[in-house]
Amino acid sequence: MDPARKVDGRVERGDRTRQQILDAAVDIASVEGLEGLSIGKLALKLEMSKSGLFAAFGSKQDLQLATVDHAAEIFVERVVRRGMAAPRGLPRLWSLCESKLEYMQREVFRGGCFFAAASAEFDGRPGPVRERIAGHMKAWVELLAGAVHRAKDEGHLQADVDAAQLAFEIDSLAQGANWAYQLFGAATAFERARRGTKARLDAASAPPARRSGQRVPRRKAAATGP
Amino acid sequence: MDPARKVDGRVERGDRTRQQILDAAVDIASVEGLEGLSIGKLALKLEMSKSGLFAAFGSKQDLQLATVDHAAEIFVERVVRRGMAAPRGLPRLWSLCESKLEYMQREVFRGGCFFAAASAEFDGRPGPVRERIAGHMKAWVELLAGAVHRAKDEGHLQADVDAAQLAFEIDSLAQGANWAYQLFGAATAFERARRGTKARLDAASAPPARRSGQRVPRRKAAATGP
Repeated sequence: MDPARKVDGRVERGDRTRQQILDAAVDIASVEGLEGLSIGKLALKLEMSKSGLFAAFGSKQDLQLATVDHAAEIFVERVVRRGMAAPRGLPRLWSLCESKLEYMQREVFRGGCFFAAASAEFDGRPGPVRERIAGHMKAWVELLAGAVHRAKDEGHLQADVDAAQLAFEIDSLAQGANWAYQLFGAATAFERARRGTKARLDAASAPPARRSGQRVPRRKAAATGP
Repeated sequence: MDPARKVDGRVERGDRTRQQILDAAVDIASVEGLEGLSIGKLALKLEMSKSGLFAAFGSKQDLQLATVDHAAEIFVERVVRRGMAAPRGLPRLWSLCESKLEYMQREVFRGGCFFAAASAEFDGRPGPVRERIAGHMKAWVELLAGAVHRAKDEGHLQADVDAAQLAFEIDSLAQGANWAYQLFGAATAFERARRGTKARLDAASAPPARRSGQRVPRRKAAATGP
């Protein structure tokens, strides 16, 4: 960042600067963890003064909370909004799964899925940061289960499908893929997750779609484009 | 620990002391991460001198590596050895899955699965600690895939089952359960993982077992104990 940009247009570019700061914070935290994120490290990366960052975020915890919320905004933009753009029912459910896998595979954050890392780091540390992470993740899990319900309402999935169970299973596949990719560099893990997700959705599909054979979700989703 | 125990029988209890130190190290690291594990923190918890710990472990990285290896020994004892005690084929495969779920659910480590936390913490930090974690996890993934192969060889699973795919799917369910339990305190997640695992193994079972309906793994595993 050009230091000269810091001295003019303070008001109008306040929001943009905050976004840039938080982009950098999410990037650092995705690799070094939220505890590894310090105002000093952020100042160094952004070539900004520590005092300016202290003024903007106050405490380390405030910076951590703002970073978690910013990562959630990016997740909503890249995964939720994109997934929800697909036609309702099974295509939307599939699109949500596919968007999450793509977001993990493309490494939107340098260290892989921000929330996978943040969950593991903070699940044993009670407090506001842990609660914030859990809140965002609960919203995702409920959104996914809601999408399963909608797919049942649309008649795309069988009426007796356990929505929470199916949502748990397909989200676990995405988590398993992120784990294998980050630890082993195994990009095939995303294909495994896709294959597993398709098999779950095929098995849960309502009879007409089910009789038509394999890969129902891919054909339906293909029409809506990635 | 009673400080008086530090002054006698140094040789014969050297190994035991090392085990106790590493037990404490794994416990701290499961909650605060391997980076949060310092010789100072360990000395405080064990009421031992920092100099003694420095003499035993040298650097922080050596302590981290010894902690990772110790956690792997516990994992082998609690999950692998227990799982492998079941009769070969499908019962053994199911027992390995069940042992891992139990180990996660019982929180053998205060912060949940040590390796789930350590993987997320170190996957973005190249170096010997990351390689050690990845090595232990690779051994587990391969052991699980090997158990699937054995179950095929025994005629318990269909010959065309993709062993790596099935191992990926069932291990992802365990990871998803650990995540949900640690973040939301949702013990139901382990039941969801069991249900998903049984469904995967049922679907992959060779025809005679498959025709007999649901819950094949539970009935087979029941004969071998918990």
